[in-house]
Amino acid sequence: MTVTPETDMSDLAIASRAVLKPIAHIAEAAGIPQEALEPYGRYKAKIDPQHLLPRGVKAGKVVLVSGISPTPAGEGKSTVSVGLGDALAATGTKTMIALREPSLGPIFGMKGGATGGGYAQVLPMDEINMHFTGDFHAITSANNLLMALLDNHLHQGNALGIDPRRISFKRVLDMNDRALRNIVIGLGGPSEGIPRETGFEITVASEVMAVFCLATGLSDLRARLGRMTIAYTYDKRPVTVDDLGAAGAMTMLLKEAIKPNLVQTIAGTPALIHGGPFANIAHGCNSAIATNTARSLADVVVTEAGFGADLGAEKFMDIKARFAGCAPSAVVLVATVRALKMHGGVAKDSLSAQNLDAVRLGMANLARHAANIRKFGVEPVIAVNRFTTDTPEELAEITSWAAEAGIECAVADVWGRGGAGATELAQAVLRTIDAPNDFAPLYELERPTEEKILTIVREIYGGDGVEYSPGAKRMLQQIRDNGWDDLPVCMAKTQYSFSDDPALLGAPQGFMVQVRELIPKTGAGFIVAITGAIMTMPGLPKVPAAMHMDVDEQGRAVGLS
Amino acid sequence: MTVTPETDMSDLAIASRAVLKPIAHIAEAAGIPQEALEPYGRYKAKIDPQHLLPRGVKAGKVVLVSGISPTPAGEGKSTVSVGLGDALAATGTKTMIALREPSLGPIFGMKGGATGGGYAQVLPMDEINMHFTGDFHAITSANNLLMALLDNHLHQGNALGIDPRRISFKRVLDMNDRALRNIVIGLGGPSEGIPRETGFEITVASEVMAVFCLATGLSDLRARLGRMTIAYTYDKRPVTVDDLGAAGAMTMLLKEAIKPNLVQTIAGTPALIHGGPFANIAHGCNSAIATNTARSLADVVVTEAGFGADLGAEKFMDIKARFAGCAPSAVVLVATVRALKMHGGVAKDSLSAQNLDAVRLGMANLARHAANIRKFGVEPVIAVNRFTTDTPEELAEITSWAAEAGIECAVADVWGRGGAGATELAQAVLRTIDAPNDFAPLYELERPTEEKILTIVREIYGGDGVEYSPGAKRMLQQIRDNGWDDLPVCMAKTQYSFSDDPALLGAPQGFMVQVRELIPKTGAGFIVAITGAIMTMPGLPKVPAAMHMDVDEQGRAVGLS
Repeated sequence: MTVTPETDMSDLAIASRAVLKPIAHIAEAAGIPQEALEPYGRYKAKIDPQHLLPRGVKAGKVVLVSGISPTPAGEGKSTVSVGLGDALAATGTKTMIALREPSLGPIFGMKGGATGGGYAQVLPMDEINMHFTGDFHAITSANNLLMALLDNHLHQGNALGIDPRRISFKRVLDMNDRALRNIVIGLGGPSEGIPRETGFEITVASEVMAVFCLATGLSDLRARLGRMTIAYTYDKRPVTVDDLGAAGAMTMLLKEAIKPNLVQTIAGTPALIHGGPFANIAHGCNSAIATNTARSLADVVVTEAGFGADLGAEKFMDIKARFAGCAPSAVVLVATVRALKMHGGVAKDSLSAQNLDAVRLGMANLARHAANIRKFGVEPVIAVNRFTTDTPEELAEITSWAAEAGIECAVADVWGRGGAGATELAQAVLRTIDAPNDFAPLYELERPTEEKILTIVREIYGGDGVEYSPGAKRMLQQIRDNGWDDLPVCMAKTQYSFSDDPALLGAPQGFMVQVRELIPKTGAGFIVAITGAIMTMPGLPKVPAAMHMDVDEQGRAVGLS
Repeated sequence: MTVTPETDMSDLAIASRAVLKPIAHIAEAAGIPQEALEPYGRYKAKIDPQHLLPRGVKAGKVVLVSGISPTPAGEGKSTVSVGLGDALAATGTKTMIALREPSLGPIFGMKGGATGGGYAQVLPMDEINMHFTGDFHAITSANNLLMALLDNHLHQGNALGIDPRRISFKRVLDMNDRALRNIVIGLGGPSEGIPRETGFEITVASEVMAVFCLATGLSDLRARLGRMTIAYTYDKRPVTVDDLGAAGAMTMLLKEAIKPNLVQTIAGTPALIHGGPFANIAHGCNSAIATNTARSLADVVVTEAGFGADLGAEKFMDIKARFAGCAPSAVVLVATVRALKMHGGVAKDSLSAQNLDAVRLGMANLARHAANIRKFGVEPVIAVNRFTTDTPEELAEITSWAAEAGIECAVADVWGRGGAGATELAQAVLRTIDAPNDFAPLYELERPTEEKILTIVREIYGGDGVEYSPGAKRMLQQIRDNGWDDLPVCMAKTQYSFSDDPALLGAPQGFMVQVRELIPKTGAGFIVAITGAIMTMPGLPKVPAAMHMDVDEQGRAVGLS
């Protein structure tokens, strides 16, 4: 989400005035040897980790950027990530940024690009937003090849005995396309496949995307793809990709995509932008390969997790850091005065007026997130992403509270000033990562699934307990029977509240979380717990952003912002 | 289709042993200035035609590679195109090859890659076959964005009054996926879109692909996209992309893809590989931009058209050359002894035995194609693509017939020897393009659609006449009413026969052609005449080629051949 204060320059206008360095120069400065660099155009490149020199035992420290529970007011995590990276680089610290790739769905739907904003952007913004180096297309192809092979298997005699009513995997498109949510395929008679109900999801919701982002290398990628559960037989045994024999061809489709993509910020800081799973039904952060590649090159890696810290940071700790060994040395919690006021009960159209009470009330949300981070043995750093409407008194409410609570806190103006607006924040982060920390995941994998979910609900969300639907209860039994009980949990919950009710802002208490469904993602290696209605194929709004997009006579993108 | 004689080396094995030059060297040798070159990896690049120097009035001559009516025995047009290009380059002629991009559908379906074969290949073959520079993915995205916007338009109130039963455009995937041919979408209730019947086609069948390949530049691309007819209103008026307002965003998705892709052959000859429309419901040759870019750089451009000359060459002349001004100076007709024997009545499993009578009989097919080429004022050159099973007597049947008929003819061994196997063919081609020719399309655009179709059927196919289904008759009236009568015709006919019956091999006579349906493609700028059953979404076979594909421990593709 991009913070856009009043200004006469769009993100695209600022981006298009930046003078980019050739990507080979960025790579050289980052210590990437020539033989590891595969340019894609002049300002993008793939990095082949096979050709990087091993860095020995010491790896760069990870700074995870997360945030308060998001509101429609916007928080600007990506913008802060980029600005913080630039500010750290400006101190002489060898810094690299690792972020998710944008999805075409939201770009054409609501709000244009997802590459930071203002003077804290990664470039070339139009190319990163459109196709980039083709990774999402490769993931879409791999997912849909699998499904074509699956439906072909049914059509050609169904030797595996797959129950067409129990196929859990779906086709995907990187598009917001409501009409594909519920469809019937295979119509038209005996030569046209087996009729069955299914649907499309958006590519970022594909388990292939989650696998892609958790794999530690090509052989791990292939093994994880092979382990994905895609259907059940008539006698309810799980069917995997390996049963179908599709993992090899899928891996072939992904072999170039799996290499991280190098770009630069407006300030010339190197950034790896790679992968982008949903933050609800998946874990919501860039690829493990990109994070660890960045760590092998830089002393500090700034990376981001989707949604608020209750979802993004928890999953980063309990899933990604656990599997990929990339525990953060500090967690930056991004907040804005406007968003805190919304958590304090102010309506969206009244956010410009000063309201100290609302800031104080809303800070309960921030405080709970901060306390949660400490439960992983990691220190939080609060970044107040400044808007032009913020008053000094409002900002002081936050900074003085943080000082009292003994939490590092800095106000940053990254949109308007880039890295220069995050100097204090960078110092706070450097102090924090230099202090010792004692990372540990929240729960042990050996505990039963119910216990893991309850731990997250009590410790992170502040809820009282968990209620399971009858179907979810049956799935708990299947999870035990199939030996999946040692997988971590990936919570799919509304991002707007600690609870499963998006209307409960601030820091609600005394609630139960309803688990409607449990979906084993045996390739990604987690059990998704669905609470409430989670949309895996968004729709387009009344007037989609696409309607304003075009190309000018010089072939440049317009209307993308 | 790749010719694969008995050998112990697969195409992939040969390709992977080739030593490639950096793409910047290939570009420099081809006269492409640095500022026009956008590398994609080390051995692929996009060329921005905006940065090429204008070449003045003189443009390179075009050699179109076409063939006899294809048979399951395989003819090897792409392999001959590559070998001929290498042979021409070896004579010191400034040569460039322009070919279609492969589609993932057939790669995973029947027969692996589509980048030539043996020692006549374009490289890097695995990357060209998998994703390449992402052009097909961009076309898929543009097509599917259009459809998401269309279904969203229906859902949001349908201001244009579109009849959901009369939406002629479909979504696409670059995949063979039978189960998506006939589907029902928009199920699930009022918030999930408008239910309607539709289906997916393969990306190469999309009108966006045809538009992409006929556009002469970015603004022409946008204008053609805007003119595409996608649906009809309840009162049966055509609805275009411009009515929906989607052309700008679609062009934005295509703005990088529209730049031609530069690669090299095993011998280092530059090749532009760009676009790849179906040869039945579209015109079946690489982009006009690539052909004309190649002509601005080289003295001779070798390019290819899909299927036999009755389809590929006719459409090249009557559609592509007419719109893009790239008339050929010679047409190479590729034939093989084996394929001619099939046209002469021999079954596929008896092709290895010498059979002079069958060769003689089958040559009627070749003779009709050769005579047809002359109807466009262009000279044919016969290329006999040699197999190890061919006997000298069989080859002599063809060469002596050609000598009598006054047609240039050469036997080539491009699979086994690359350009060195096509020296004679190159000389024959050079003699032919140096002679004056007098190109003219077969018919004038001003004639009524029925008359254009009848002309093609009589002059090219050798048929007696045309019969129209009731629906096609109604559409003839609509074509007149909507002012589309001055568009050329794009015949969608079986490639296996001059007639619309795939079993009628050789040179059948005394047949009528049944036009089942007429589809106006107002963006591409032609009327598709459907004869027989034309499949726009192929299916996978019992054992798809994908099952044998994988990646080895060094990350290299295996099983792709």
